[in-house]
Amino acid sequence: MSTAIFYHAGCPVCLGAEQMVAEAIDRSKYQVEVVHLGEHAGRIAEAERAGVKSVPALVLNDRVFHINFGASIDDLK
Amino acid sequence: MSTAIFYHAGCPVCLGAEQMVAEAIDRSKYQVEVVHLGEHAGRIAEAERAGVKSVPALVLNDRVFHINFGASIDDLK
Repeated sequence: MSTAIFYHAGCPVCLGAEQMVAEAIDRSKYQVEVVHLGEHAGRIAEAERAGVKSVPALVLNDRVFHINFGASIDDLK
Repeated sequence: MSTAIFYHAGCPVCLGAEQMVAEAIDRSKYQVEVVHLGEHAGRIAEAERAGVKSVPALVLNDRVFHINFGASIDDLK
């Protein structure tokens, strides 16, 4: 199964995207994980390696899609 | 059923997002339409009314999500 990781930081832009976009992902195709980088700062490095520059961001397999703009990942460190 | 409209302009960023994000949308929840604004310039006004500022963009019901950045909608006119 493909993987979808939705990185966010709890910001209003993030939550709106989470509710709509992450929920719209087809669960029959993707195993969806939602990661709050504010609460799980240990995963910031992983997100950066995947190419995440800002949140909210959706990583589908190894492709990064930045969705609107909530916060820079640098501001989460 | 909810509606998902994916606006794009045929640019490389657009096509990558179309292949991954538009394809990842759950068809059991959303009726998905893909609109190429370069070929259907008559729908630019509709996209702007929905809040689209750049493409690729995904409109889920009445919420706009700009995905990465391919081109400004102003450059498509």
